[in-house]
Amino acid sequence: MQEPQAAEAGEARLIARSFRPLAAHPGAFGLLDDAAAIAPPPGCDLVLKTDGVVAGMHFFPEDPPDTVARKALRVNLSDLAAKGASPLGFLLTLVLPPEIGDAWLAPFARGLGSDAAHFACPLFGGDTDRTTGPITISIAMFGAVPHGKMVRRAGARPGDRVVVTGTIGDAALGLILRRERSAAARWGLAQSQQDHLMRRYLVPEPRIAIAEALRAHASAAMDVSDGLAGDLAKLCRVSGVATDIEVTRVPLSDAARAALAKEPALIETIVAGGDDYEVLACVPPDNLEALRRQATAVGVAITDIGAVAAGQGQARFVDACGQPLALAHPSFSHF
Amino acid sequence: MQEPQAAEAGEARLIARSFRPLAAHPGAFGLLDDAAAIAPPPGCDLVLKTDGVVAGMHFFPEDPPDTVARKALRVNLSDLAAKGASPLGFLLTLVLPPEIGDAWLAPFARGLGSDAAHFACPLFGGDTDRTTGPITISIAMFGAVPHGKMVRRAGARPGDRVVVTGTIGDAALGLILRRERSAAARWGLAQSQQDHLMRRYLVPEPRIAIAEALRAHASAAMDVSDGLAGDLAKLCRVSGVATDIEVTRVPLSDAARAALAKEPALIETIVAGGDDYEVLACVPPDNLEALRRQATAVGVAITDIGAVAAGQGQARFVDACGQPLALAHPSFSHF
Repeated sequence: MQEPQAAEAGEARLIARSFRPLAAHPGAFGLLDDAAAIAPPPGCDLVLKTDGVVAGMHFFPEDPPDTVARKALRVNLSDLAAKGASPLGFLLTLVLPPEIGDAWLAPFARGLGSDAAHFACPLFGGDTDRTTGPITISIAMFGAVPHGKMVRRAGARPGDRVVVTGTIGDAALGLILRRERSAAARWGLAQSQQDHLMRRYLVPEPRIAIAEALRAHASAAMDVSDGLAGDLAKLCRVSGVATDIEVTRVPLSDAARAALAKEPALIETIVAGGDDYEVLACVPPDNLEALRRQATAVGVAITDIGAVAAGQGQARFVDACGQPLALAHPSFSHF
Repeated sequence: MQEPQAAEAGEARLIARSFRPLAAHPGAFGLLDDAAAIAPPPGCDLVLKTDGVVAGMHFFPEDPPDTVARKALRVNLSDLAAKGASPLGFLLTLVLPPEIGDAWLAPFARGLGSDAAHFACPLFGGDTDRTTGPITISIAMFGAVPHGKMVRRAGARPGDRVVVTGTIGDAALGLILRRERSAAARWGLAQSQQDHLMRRYLVPEPRIAIAEALRAHASAAMDVSDGLAGDLAKLCRVSGVATDIEVTRVPLSDAARAALAKEPALIETIVAGGDDYEVLACVPPDNLEALRRQATAVGVAITDIGAVAAGQGQARFVDACGQPLALAHPSFSHF
């Protein structure tokens, strides 16, 4: 239904110029063909994932374009990490309102290119369209795992320990700070603590480094994108188990700990908020030390937060007094 | 940035119910995991392609949801066919305005499922988000070709013949009919001819059946999505050749031929309009008969429309009198 327009040829050139440097793999054919071709690593399964982000829904339209790009890529890399997979590359669909031009596309492409290089995850192709709606970015990500070794959600067994990487709740607190600057004063946060929380919201850190350790030691895993409580419940349902999490063991950053001390009700935001992009894994007790050792060796902290029990999908949290924590909204939903 | 809402859990279930039947491959894990895993066929390269469609841009918001789904899938299958690849499966990103519910999603999923089964191209995963903008559908498609055998755009050589499958221009004429019903009377079209053109616009026919023949016999190929003239120019540029096309040899349906007889200026719409989703290929003369024979055997017509010559990207068209055809807008652009 599009009308042909001479201006579009110029735009096509702009987009090609911005994104061609990201298509470093020879199988991307410099984005000059209709499709890419890649020889999959021998003995490996492909791991396939797609995740989209929409302005006003998953990011603020005024967010720096380079961080928007990096987040769009990293939320997909985070899934690969949790599945024990290494990145091979990605496809990009950009749907842009008419006012988006070089001033936005150039830093977007720079941010994306920087991360594509850092994570050895080249661009294999894309599609760009115009819309009357908000900026919409969809990434389809391909990774590889040794055949049959993708770490599943299903696989947790009673007796396993529940672990998470990094710290939980930072991004959800960063989002509150982003929306309501007065929260920083209320929580008594230093500037560096505010910066930490905001950065965790803007640019997640996918735990690609521990993919191999997860394959070796985890019985089940997923990334935490929609909140620890809700995502844990999903894992419990698919594995057909329950979990008992001690809230006091959930790892917090200094900034999150400071905010929580001033406003104890934030515990709900911390365990049910989204955008953590940490890995949640279930681990047979005999594997726990080996997983921790391998993770530490690549700079990723692992914290034991509770146990897997028999059950049918219950993700229970108990507070410092051993009382059940009732969550009003256990999960964000990206549907 | 989404707020948690209990209603969303219901919607997630609706979407899961609609799309789970399409995820028939065991590696899709019933859409219950974060990612899919698939063992690539031995000795094959993966062929990767993504193409998105936006309501009001690539389809009419009031188009039947089942045909929207089928077109979204088929435009990607058409690329695979032109590259000589067989489909393996796809990922789906659906970005939906708030008013879209079961009444649209159910027929959309049925249409998609029908084609996924027909083309042996299962769903491997997806993501659904809400938007304040129009319906936006992005599909990432994976196919397979024997290692190193993807049919490229680059590869045409002077002396090759230029061929196309099927008929050209139907969808562009169907789009005019869709926008301007009086055109049918002006062109003197019978109802069946109108139906033919409209159907060609709504639901393209990807030429998957000739993928193997293209691998065996074509020196270069691409699908015709943005108009024969413009797409041929792209192929010429990447191959570093020119082409001389005889407009009178471009294959037309009865309906297109009838319309053209009444309105000769439609030749521009026919050769420069988009949405054909036929295959354009360059073929060494010695291979032409074998390609035609193999294509005919699977029910696909192949027409020789001209020759490849030395040059630097010129896609020349000459009319019945041997005069150059000047095209005001040689191509649609989907950028």
